[in-house]
Amino acid sequence: MIIGQSGGPTAVINASLVGAIHEAQRIDAVDGIYGALNGIEGVLERRIVDLRRESPATLNALLNTPSAALGSCRYKLQPDDPERALNVMRDLGVRYFLYIGGNDSADTAHRVAQTANKAGYDLRVIGIPKTIDNDLPLTDHCPGYGSAARFVAVATMDSARCTEAMPTHYPVKIIEVMGRYAGWLAGSAALGKRTPDDPPHLLYIPERPFDKDAFLKRVRMTVRKRGYCVVVVAEHLIDAEGNQVGEVYGVDAFGHPLTAGVADTLVDLVRGELGLRARSDKPGDMQRMATMHISKTDRDEAYLAGRMAMRYAVRGVTGKMVTLVRATGSRYACETGLADLESIANEQKQLPADYLDADGTGVTQAFLDYARPLIGDPLPEHGQLRAERI
Amino acid sequence: MIIGQSGGPTAVINASLVGAIHEAQRIDAVDGIYGALNGIEGVLERRIVDLRRESPATLNALLNTPSAALGSCRYKLQPDDPERALNVMRDLGVRYFLYIGGNDSADTAHRVAQTANKAGYDLRVIGIPKTIDNDLPLTDHCPGYGSAARFVAVATMDSARCTEAMPTHYPVKIIEVMGRYAGWLAGSAALGKRTPDDPPHLLYIPERPFDKDAFLKRVRMTVRKRGYCVVVVAEHLIDAEGNQVGEVYGVDAFGHPLTAGVADTLVDLVRGELGLRARSDKPGDMQRMATMHISKTDRDEAYLAGRMAMRYAVRGVTGKMVTLVRATGSRYACETGLADLESIANEQKQLPADYLDADGTGVTQAFLDYARPLIGDPLPEHGQLRAERI
Repeated sequence: MIIGQSGGPTAVINASLVGAIHEAQRIDAVDGIYGALNGIEGVLERRIVDLRRESPATLNALLNTPSAALGSCRYKLQPDDPERALNVMRDLGVRYFLYIGGNDSADTAHRVAQTANKAGYDLRVIGIPKTIDNDLPLTDHCPGYGSAARFVAVATMDSARCTEAMPTHYPVKIIEVMGRYAGWLAGSAALGKRTPDDPPHLLYIPERPFDKDAFLKRVRMTVRKRGYCVVVVAEHLIDAEGNQVGEVYGVDAFGHPLTAGVADTLVDLVRGELGLRARSDKPGDMQRMATMHISKTDRDEAYLAGRMAMRYAVRGVTGKMVTLVRATGSRYACETGLADLESIANEQKQLPADYLDADGTGVTQAFLDYARPLIGDPLPEHGQLRAERI
Repeated sequence: MIIGQSGGPTAVINASLVGAIHEAQRIDAVDGIYGALNGIEGVLERRIVDLRRESPATLNALLNTPSAALGSCRYKLQPDDPERALNVMRDLGVRYFLYIGGNDSADTAHRVAQTANKAGYDLRVIGIPKTIDNDLPLTDHCPGYGSAARFVAVATMDSARCTEAMPTHYPVKIIEVMGRYAGWLAGSAALGKRTPDDPPHLLYIPERPFDKDAFLKRVRMTVRKRGYCVVVVAEHLIDAEGNQVGEVYGVDAFGHPLTAGVADTLVDLVRGELGLRARSDKPGDMQRMATMHISKTDRDEAYLAGRMAMRYAVRGVTGKMVTLVRATGSRYACETGLADLESIANEQKQLPADYLDADGTGVTQAFLDYARPLIGDPLPEHGQLRAERI
């Protein structure tokens, strides 16, 4: 078998790798366990490693190691790449191709599967889902999301307290969160709220068009009412005309156009239009890679998805992605299922309407109920003074 | 006694508060324990709370709660403020004034102490050091630094692995770290290095003038040699002419000047001049407030500084700040000392020359030996594949 990692790394993508390796080690039919460096690029360039040479201690350590241990890639297949990849696998006697990734990676795996099928070569191709964006269709959620959501929830609690403590200094804080064209990750900032008044006070995500005037009005009202305002914003915001918010905002010394992050664009708006001091946090890759915020639930499910991918492949399944299926009932539990790679590829699942409140600037209890089990252990509790005046 | 918190909050400033309260509770002479909301502002505006009304459970929880539980401030004293503050304290029968903060807060405490002295009012004023910037003179280090340094070390390890995994996608990462006009915090990013080749590869701090051409050359060389380059940069960089790097970089739609962060300025440089893809992380307040990165050593020392402040005050000391004194010997240990508030105020301690390497883009073993004990438990270990090629 050969396995590769693709797309933006996560805190638990290595757990899927280890799950697949552990399962492969148990199966007699699998006499070689190969890893492609940098995903499909490693297949095409024959940069392939022998994963049987890795110690049990290394594999165990990888369960708590963010990022893609094999290296990852963002590579768009060229027309003759699937055939080239197939030739490499055929040379190596590979019969199982497991590919960990998101939408684009599902497309890659799908095309390799198609090519093998046409060529009459018995190759079982299984995708293992991975994305902090949680935007894959046909799966309840995606490995990688729970850990990133946990980081975002705790970091928002933490950072918001700084703004709360010094409202006269910087009354407005804008936190920029990843998530591509979906609000799953930004919405998870609300998981740290204990009361409706707690930060984050406003949430802006790509599912709803961004209205500048409404934004400024809400920030001003929140500052008036609570003394400060914490806003969480997704990395992609779209205005009513369908334009990306904050793309190009000026020119540099060389006349090149400058592109700003969304958070910094909102900070400029708050400063310029409301005259309020504002600052931003943009944790960037830290949110997808946080060792200290690995959700045990997320890690266990990532491991399970890897194991099951190998098991399904040996059972004869091909052209499918492993999905996570939430059990019905009051207690959270999760099993795996299967979906066509083709129907995963290039499709994105946004937040459903009933996960957003009427304003579109907050999430509902239904969203919190959905997301809370995925972030694992209870969030840390912060102490708070009663602060009785003398 | 009355206590207040001032300046940028930290992950352990509440530990100093709790240390002072615990000590005050043990002392018969202290029959009232007051907290000023938002530091000296709360004294001046008589926004004062009764800390004896807080439960032991709340105080314990605050030992692991970042931010200033009493609220903080950045307030520059007006000429008649010290007298007004003194009048409030006299009204309340306050004999001990403990003030947790950095340089500016030491100045505030100093002026209140002077005013009391002139007025012949027996007020014992003690400062408790606090700053993630670690830039106070006369103390080995500052409570708050160790926890922020721990965050920066781990988050750099984490985020850098993302860049390492996808070198063809984004070969350059710029991480912006706080620290005012000193490189203590940015330098701590190197604490996660296991080998000299590990990221961060380049470090830019205010102690050395920023040379754009040398920067670009080093980034290009690092990418050529290692495939990727991770740069950690302090929030304030000064060029050879003494100008701040990245202050004003363009104009917005309204013609207002736009000010960029240092990291984004370096990202633009790398893109524009080297044609390499680059991205930035700017954790912002998350780095000073990280619940999950509280250093036990830092927290214990913050608590100790709070306790000792109360103890020194009762012994008759005034006009001093508690300092941390590192014991000589091979095993790390720390006691408290005292320094004049006046000599702390408005002075900044930068990294000494022997903590920086010849290039000024890396720290020396002497720095690592200095900083490592302050971040508490060993850093998490990441697993790594042997990756033997077939």
